[in-house]
Amino acid sequence: MERTRGGVFIALEGVEGAGKSTQVRLLEEWLRGRGLDPVVTREPGGTAVGEEARRILLESEHVTAETELLLMLAARSALVTEVIRPALESGRVVVTDRFDLSTMAYQAYGRGLPAAEVEAMNRFATGGLTPDVTVLLDVDPEVGSRRRGGAGRDRIERAGVAFHGRVAGAYRLLAEGQDRIARVDGSDGPAAVHERVLALLSARFPETFPGGAG
Amino acid sequence: MERTRGGVFIALEGVEGAGKSTQVRLLEEWLRGRGLDPVVTREPGGTAVGEEARRILLESEHVTAETELLLMLAARSALVTEVIRPALESGRVVVTDRFDLSTMAYQAYGRGLPAAEVEAMNRFATGGLTPDVTVLLDVDPEVGSRRRGGAGRDRIERAGVAFHGRVAGAYRLLAEGQDRIARVDGSDGPAAVHERVLALLSARFPETFPGGAG
Repeated sequence: MERTRGGVFIALEGVEGAGKSTQVRLLEEWLRGRGLDPVVTREPGGTAVGEEARRILLESEHVTAETELLLMLAARSALVTEVIRPALESGRVVVTDRFDLSTMAYQAYGRGLPAAEVEAMNRFATGGLTPDVTVLLDVDPEVGSRRRGGAGRDRIERAGVAFHGRVAGAYRLLAEGQDRIARVDGSDGPAAVHERVLALLSARFPETFPGGAG
Repeated sequence: MERTRGGVFIALEGVEGAGKSTQVRLLEEWLRGRGLDPVVTREPGGTAVGEEARRILLESEHVTAETELLLMLAARSALVTEVIRPALESGRVVVTDRFDLSTMAYQAYGRGLPAAEVEAMNRFATGGLTPDVTVLLDVDPEVGSRRRGGAGRDRIERAGVAFHGRVAGAYRLLAEGQDRIARVDGSDGPAAVHERVLALLSARFPETFPGGAG
């Protein structure tokens, strides 16, 4: 909720295969093309703690929902302190592949942990920092499933269609009536979705994104 | 609070140099000498998640109090699920070098995190499991400091006399009026302290510790 800083903090969210990493890359290229130097991160990751957490979460077969949440939040806490806050304070744009909405969609709704408790712990981990806007790339879970294919799938990606359907539903539910969460149709090709993302960011942050796709 | 299991869950606590690892070893030997097969763990550690957390916590120089707590709790959550609960359910004695009282003493009182929030998060991590008894090895922080010496000290051990004094005070405060926490004078030699620990356990769990030091 605080705004004692100059930068813009953007999170991209969505189910596996929604196109987050592609859109993060296109957004980064666009910002660099305008002479800006954005900070791009992914969750979990981006710090020593985060990369260890990522390794444990993706490789372990028997991590419980509680352990998973606590590791995710440890990684987020380190990412906020070491990377995101310093970048925002120096006026930079931060683009992150997943942030707090993932926790609500995957750990609370997907894995069934109590939402109020998850929210409170997330607030503890972030010190109350929230993205200025969260862009939800909305695709049908089956489109996501087709896109991500079968190769190199990790523990979370293997969790099954029912789980991913629940997560997709949770994302939509969480976005409803939330001004800070913007739903974008992600079912078209990368360039078309990129245009939509830019138009949205341009409407909200005209100084950083002048002229939209321009 | 639940007691749907057969084993006895014992935590040893105290400042660095209080003699926890020595007393855990002596207790383990005593139990083995009586034909029991105790499970001995240390925190953080004892699982893949815990050993990674231990490595990060002891080696990183710039971990914040929030990240430290979340990592500790992730490790504890894994330890409870993978090791402690299964052992208790099969009727074994579990002896752990540190558990939830460390979190209150180090992270809440020592590092200044809000105690109620830390307690709530600990409860989330443990699923409400608490030791049947927590043995607090009480030594003057300066005795502890002398015992642990200067060699091979890690980040937490280097945190300074003021910090350790605060933690020692917190341990005493937390133990006051708590039936589940037993304070034992830890300033004498290992054998004398071991006798005290056994006498205490014998009074509380006569079936598992018949005849005390016998």
